[in-house]
Amino acid sequence: MSSTEGKTITCRAAVAWGPNKPLSVETVEVAPPQAGEVRVKITHTAICHTDAYTLDGMDPEGLFPCILGHEAAGIVESVGEGVTEVQPGDKVIPCYQAECRECKFCRSNKTNLCGKVRPATGNGVMLNDMKSRFSVNGKPIYHFMGTSTFSEYTVVHAVSVAKINPAAPLEKICLLGCGIPTGLGAVWNTAKVESGSTVAIFGLGAVGLAVAEGAKAAGATEIIGVDINPAKFELAKNFGCTKFVNPKEHKEPIQQVIVDMTDGGVDYSFECVGNVDLMRSALECCHKGWGTSVIIGVAASGKEISTRPFQLVTGRVWKGTAFGGFKSRTQVPELVEKYLNKEIKVDEFITHNLPFSKINEGFELLHGGTSLRCVLHLDQ
Amino acid sequence: MSSTEGKTITCRAAVAWGPNKPLSVETVEVAPPQAGEVRVKITHTAICHTDAYTLDGMDPEGLFPCILGHEAAGIVESVGEGVTEVQPGDKVIPCYQAECRECKFCRSNKTNLCGKVRPATGNGVMLNDMKSRFSVNGKPIYHFMGTSTFSEYTVVHAVSVAKINPAAPLEKICLLGCGIPTGLGAVWNTAKVESGSTVAIFGLGAVGLAVAEGAKAAGATEIIGVDINPAKFELAKNFGCTKFVNPKEHKEPIQQVIVDMTDGGVDYSFECVGNVDLMRSALECCHKGWGTSVIIGVAASGKEISTRPFQLVTGRVWKGTAFGGFKSRTQVPELVEKYLNKEIKVDEFITHNLPFSKINEGFELLHGGTSLRCVLHLDQ
Repeated sequence: MSSTEGKTITCRAAVAWGPNKPLSVETVEVAPPQAGEVRVKITHTAICHTDAYTLDGMDPEGLFPCILGHEAAGIVESVGEGVTEVQPGDKVIPCYQAECRECKFCRSNKTNLCGKVRPATGNGVMLNDMKSRFSVNGKPIYHFMGTSTFSEYTVVHAVSVAKINPAAPLEKICLLGCGIPTGLGAVWNTAKVESGSTVAIFGLGAVGLAVAEGAKAAGATEIIGVDINPAKFELAKNFGCTKFVNPKEHKEPIQQVIVDMTDGGVDYSFECVGNVDLMRSALECCHKGWGTSVIIGVAASGKEISTRPFQLVTGRVWKGTAFGGFKSRTQVPELVEKYLNKEIKVDEFITHNLPFSKINEGFELLHGGTSLRCVLHLDQ
Repeated sequence: MSSTEGKTITCRAAVAWGPNKPLSVETVEVAPPQAGEVRVKITHTAICHTDAYTLDGMDPEGLFPCILGHEAAGIVESVGEGVTEVQPGDKVIPCYQAECRECKFCRSNKTNLCGKVRPATGNGVMLNDMKSRFSVNGKPIYHFMGTSTFSEYTVVHAVSVAKINPAAPLEKICLLGCGIPTGLGAVWNTAKVESGSTVAIFGLGAVGLAVAEGAKAAGATEIIGVDINPAKFELAKNFGCTKFVNPKEHKEPIQQVIVDMTDGGVDYSFECVGNVDLMRSALECCHKGWGTSVIIGVAASGKEISTRPFQLVTGRVWKGTAFGGFKSRTQVPELVEKYLNKEIKVDEFITHNLPFSKINEGFELLHGGTSLRCVLHLDQ
């Protein structure tokens, strides 16, 4: 039993007091976990675009003040009543997509979208009492995505935490909390890319590169990277891309360019940007008869996708994916094993490391387009 | 060898001289089949909405003058050079969707969209010389959909003709040339509906009823028919529909009505009208995580479908189908066998029979909404 068990912990967290303001690293109180909850000491957290999206006030459902962060790793500090699947000392990855193994989503083999704790996480609170476990001078601070990993300690639902191999280096595998599984899973679970396929990837950030890696592993023979930043192309070769298209270098619609260079279109395409025009291009660059396009990026609020229905009637399929379709608690530990067995890249996505106190620098790196992933070390 | 083999045949056909004009039943010349072609004596043809759509001038690519018609049956009169798969006397169904068994589409098990004769059929001519086999007083008349079955004799590509069981009654199984396979195949091939599924069908015309029949055969337990004409509901029960929704009786968007009555949405939905707003409703009434919507209807030219990408990111799948995904020459004969074995309904779709000379009456019945299928008898 740890000395902090059952007590409120006072620690550092990066508080988002409102949209479009820098994060404020300050002292917060973290209440003990209640029934079905786990308190985790976060050791490392990365910064993902969804954090920036919310901080920039783009999400109309964003709640402030809150503690952002959802791609991280840590060690269980204590557990609440009834929690048996993890115990203090376990290495874990918080999972913004829960897996309760009981709801109709979890019982279906077609989806990973567990709905168990969504009524709480969608409102920035915990399910047990629909309240927050974070406060600053007694004032409640909202949770974010059920994870809130920009804090030395966080409280998550037990259904939202994956126990991983204790041999895993937390400063690396924290990336398996979001971007990498999202890209790999979009290829393996959602699109189910087969050997010999042609693939187009719109957007060569961390998720797009994970798509490339997943496609290469699946045996795709042609992997076309699409980005308006040609600096991404050299890097993307290391992840499996075989060709590159810069839409800025073409007058024709980019879907036409890709259709022409692939004798009718690609077998699979992936939109990893969150731009509805690119989502249309991604669909329409697919081959008639069987081409499948998967939307991964999160579009701005209120934006809609469009196309002529003829595109679908002639055999194209339009899908989307969240967390790559991975059942989180079951499959994140499997991805950690794959990393430990050197079957998937993780280290290569980490372009920057910063002490936690420099978290706002990390956001600047993300906005600057020079960072794939910046890992924040909470022990620094 | 028939007495007409190798000679031009003079016979009756219903000529569409231009959009928005009644068809003119008059004498046409039908040239002998060239290499890879088959001349068929059409005995029975039905009228389908695509014929009306083109005749009404809705298809900007419609070519006039032409001979419409694509849902029919008949007997091979003669064959051109190199044709070995059918011979004079064979009972056949012309197939507007060809199957050459050689192109990349035919070699794929994911699609039925053979592209072999498309360059010709899309331009109202035959592939061998890119000319028409029909003429009136020497003036060429365009083919339509590669079938042109509103004629006592027609010439089709050998890859566009399915040889069927000689025991089949042509006055019935002519319907297996379009609408019924489209509905059944959307369920069996495109959506792959499983036993125990819930299904919503938008539009209870012949295609929608075939969807209901296919869904019932697949073991769907709840089949919701959606139509603004309540007169369709009693009929639809016979085809498998278990519940009915009339959008005119609800203030809420119809997708919300269906989501509410199905605890979150249906597993599969089918749009059988050709209305892009209904296509959106059909997608959005699907269950989060796995709901799949199939577009069957043909939308007006230039119309686009739209939705929020969130609909797809949260697990819904948007697809379409043409001729139900059936590989025509291979599978239409199988459907005929199913009919002969009483495994699928056909007779029940025939609400009217008319002599060929009354073809314009048949179009009026279709427009009036009182006809499912009107079969024209060319021997009358």
